[in-house]
Amino acid sequence: MARAWHLKSRPSGMPTLDNFELKDVELPPLGEGCLRVRNRWLSVDPYMRGRMNDVKSYVPPFQVGEPMDGGAIGEVIESRAEGFAPGDLVQHMAGWRDEAVVAARTAQKLPGLGAPPEQFLGVLGVTGITAYFGLLDAATAKAGDVVFVSAAAGAVGSVVVQVAKAKGMTVVGSVGGPDKCGFVRSLGADHVIDYKTGPILKSLAAAAPDGIDVYFDNVGGDHLDAALALARNNARFAICGMIEGYNTGQPTSLRFIMRVIAARIRLKGFIVFDYFPRLPEFYAEMGPWVADGTVKSRETVVDGLDNTADAFLGLFEGANTGKMLVRL
Amino acid sequence: MARAWHLKSRPSGMPTLDNFELKDVELPPLGEGCLRVRNRWLSVDPYMRGRMNDVKSYVPPFQVGEPMDGGAIGEVIESRAEGFAPGDLVQHMAGWRDEAVVAARTAQKLPGLGAPPEQFLGVLGVTGITAYFGLLDAATAKAGDVVFVSAAAGAVGSVVVQVAKAKGMTVVGSVGGPDKCGFVRSLGADHVIDYKTGPILKSLAAAAPDGIDVYFDNVGGDHLDAALALARNNARFAICGMIEGYNTGQPTSLRFIMRVIAARIRLKGFIVFDYFPRLPEFYAEMGPWVADGTVKSRETVVDGLDNTADAFLGLFEGANTGKMLVRL
Repeated sequence: MARAWHLKSRPSGMPTLDNFELKDVELPPLGEGCLRVRNRWLSVDPYMRGRMNDVKSYVPPFQVGEPMDGGAIGEVIESRAEGFAPGDLVQHMAGWRDEAVVAARTAQKLPGLGAPPEQFLGVLGVTGITAYFGLLDAATAKAGDVVFVSAAAGAVGSVVVQVAKAKGMTVVGSVGGPDKCGFVRSLGADHVIDYKTGPILKSLAAAAPDGIDVYFDNVGGDHLDAALALARNNARFAICGMIEGYNTGQPTSLRFIMRVIAARIRLKGFIVFDYFPRLPEFYAEMGPWVADGTVKSRETVVDGLDNTADAFLGLFEGANTGKMLVRL
Repeated sequence: MARAWHLKSRPSGMPTLDNFELKDVELPPLGEGCLRVRNRWLSVDPYMRGRMNDVKSYVPPFQVGEPMDGGAIGEVIESRAEGFAPGDLVQHMAGWRDEAVVAARTAQKLPGLGAPPEQFLGVLGVTGITAYFGLLDAATAKAGDVVFVSAAAGAVGSVVVQVAKAKGMTVVGSVGGPDKCGFVRSLGADHVIDYKTGPILKSLAAAAPDGIDVYFDNVGGDHLDAALALARNNARFAICGMIEGYNTGQPTSLRFIMRVIAARIRLKGFIVFDYFPRLPEFYAEMGPWVADGTVKSRETVVDGLDNTADAFLGLFEGANTGKMLVRL
């Protein structure tokens, strides 16, 4: 017997606890090539909001009445797969639950980088991969660029700030609230904007009077519009997320979209999965940065499987600084 | 004495004839290195609407009370510049008038491609260069792509349709009205949408049931939103113009902007001037296409300097099929 979070109903607008249900599930017998895993850490991420809608996208939607899934780190407690033994720590996609039977081919043993296991859901995992390739590949950011990052205290944003600084860029981060301002400043950002204190366009114009070369978008909406307004010639935008729009269903109203022409702006959407073939490149650069403290990991940890849905909902209220994780 | 159109006042919203004034101007004496030119053809273009506002952009704004300018083809009637002689046909930027004194370094003798001179304001000029590099460079369109073009009966759009067909692409064009439908079909487009007959999203979904790989945007607004909605993975958008927004000043409302992420869409704004260093490449491919009829030139011709402002205003009412020109 395991316990797993199920999608009880689809939200319209902001999800609530009523959309989720924690229920017992029977685990299948351990087939050949499979692992029984006890989860230690669960990942909750903004992109999961999209999976709560019945819409085909780059990941399939959650199904009503069925268990949910997502990134997790677990310990192998029984193995019928070559190369895996009890005690191994693995990363896999059977999150939102305490125990799972998974096919070994869908699980990866954690690389021996000497980092704490939970970092493979954060700075050394999908979060870090998103930040690294979004900034350096999708936005082709380079030394000397002025980089604007929204949700700069968030899981992805906080890594973007640090990678940009490590690569010799000037960084303007936007966050909500004074605590997050301090945090992002401590990561080395050159300017930090609290978007709650005034119109983002005005704040960004003050922080980057000569404009921006790169925008790493986690937010959409007014942040995207301000970035369009202040983009320098040949600016590049990496569009990673638009959390502002995930729950509202409202159209995005852009006053400055026409500037893409005069300023020759490039916007590029990207999905982290597309970069998985380039993981060795990522580990080679990020591994040492994390080990020597150039890139610091920051997590907001919620304890207990029972609180997983709460942790997820907190993402939309700015409850997290850095990566939001659930520890079992 | 020459006659030149002046900007009389700046419009708010849609410009009217009252914003323009045709007045006599004294021409300066013909200095060393200069040409006296009698204009034969004037170009009026949507981008000039932006120059009527007092806004810094990639070309300086027109000044109230001052003569306007723009692309033109003229005949040299007096030369104090080496390499130019009376009778030479030149392309230059002293349009919106009948006669001008221009610095020879700002004028180009028409390349000897055997084409009628007015085509160097259209399919072999800025219009054609915009279409060619916008499609092939900004959008990196290639054989096999499904290409959606808005304002497909317009100056740029009608060339995009033909270049795309010449390169082995499938083309969906959008136009306003049945006459333009017929025209764009005659250019070889696989599907033509009359956007006046219903919501563009529905029409585009019917014309391109499997989605689009490339969008060449001359229009913005709902056309851009429909293209976002129906973009396939790794779609590329060339953002050339957004005529819908030039006069309204309204923000653009996009319901499907979030699809840039899931579909990894790339949007790229571009300015034709940036491609001038690559003109030899353009002439080498487009010259033969125009000569052998692969790419046909189509102009809407208005006669007489007096009618230049009318011709310009007609651009915003869909009065032109192909390139709008004024013949003197």
